[in-house]
Amino acid sequence: MKTLKDRILKDGKCFPGGILKVDNFINHQMDPILMKSIGVEFVRRFASTSINKVITVEASGIAPAIMVGYLLELPVVFAKKKKPSTMENMLTTTVFSFTKNRSYEVCVSKDFLCPGDKVLFIDDFLANGNAAKGMIDLVKQAGAELAGMGFIIEKAFQHGGDELREQGIHVESLAIIESLDNCEIKIR
Amino acid sequence: MKTLKDRILKDGKCFPGGILKVDNFINHQMDPILMKSIGVEFVRRFASTSINKVITVEASGIAPAIMVGYLLELPVVFAKKKKPSTMENMLTTTVFSFTKNRSYEVCVSKDFLCPGDKVLFIDDFLANGNAAKGMIDLVKQAGAELAGMGFIIEKAFQHGGDELREQGIHVESLAIIESLDNCEIKIR
Repeated sequence: MKTLKDRILKDGKCFPGGILKVDNFINHQMDPILMKSIGVEFVRRFASTSINKVITVEASGIAPAIMVGYLLELPVVFAKKKKPSTMENMLTTTVFSFTKNRSYEVCVSKDFLCPGDKVLFIDDFLANGNAAKGMIDLVKQAGAELAGMGFIIEKAFQHGGDELREQGIHVESLAIIESLDNCEIKIR
Repeated sequence: MKTLKDRILKDGKCFPGGILKVDNFINHQMDPILMKSIGVEFVRRFASTSINKVITVEASGIAPAIMVGYLLELPVVFAKKKKPSTMENMLTTTVFSFTKNRSYEVCVSKDFLCPGDKVLFIDDFLANGNAAKGMIDLVKQAGAELAGMGFIIEKAFQHGGDELREQGIHVESLAIIESLDNCEIKIR
């Protein structure tokens, strides 16, 4: 997706340790026009996939997911990162975040992730794939089917995408970062 | 907004203690078509307001805010509920949540909330107004101007809206809940 790649090269910021900050157009300040184009590109990439629900994780996944859901006219569910006090009937999994060096709980209500659901997972980043694996676990627990996983940015050098594809999952990443060595952004 | 009110009466669930759950169309599972209509209604209500940025708080505010930003072609910033390790240059405020009976930090980067910005704040709920007051504090710290505050649902009986309007803030709520007494939803 050329617009996205150009924007990453223009506005993305690289930090030591393989950190790419895109917080002025994706995950703190968001460009809604770009988000709509990202939504359209996901729709195109999963055009031949049967989907009845879009799923994501709060918070940065919500904007691209709602755009995909809007375009496909499908409900969008966002998994939550803590168990809210007013929620019962929850499916829960634990995700280890390398960036934050700690584990966190991700949960979703059984009312909204159900047996027979064909879900498309959308998120902003795919790095080592731990958040994605947590979602796979939730989908499995629910007895739902994972139709595909779409990411705005994949960090290929952290190999989460390789693992997901080896499991036979249909993974689409709109921009694939080959390397951030020497704080230089190299896009595939 | 009739569609929204009808939907609240149809799908909203009332719990003792003034709790209204709308988690099957607003804040866990989301209806993107309704979110777009909500966005259009906010645009209409703030039609005569000069705005250059939409601001919200993660996570439930992101979907309505991105729709407003998309329609107005304006950047959308979401304030974060914890200080992320990779963020510097932050404005921070403390918000007390009655629902969760604890305080949390809300923060936004100075890079994205700037002197001279005219911001429209969008969120899902207005109850006692503590989250809104936190945002007012952040806008003030940034030297920005608060152009207005739009909420999908206002719980009138918790009086946050009264306080904001008494301060002269342009507040728009798309559905105003008069009471949830005896677990019955009464909409103004």
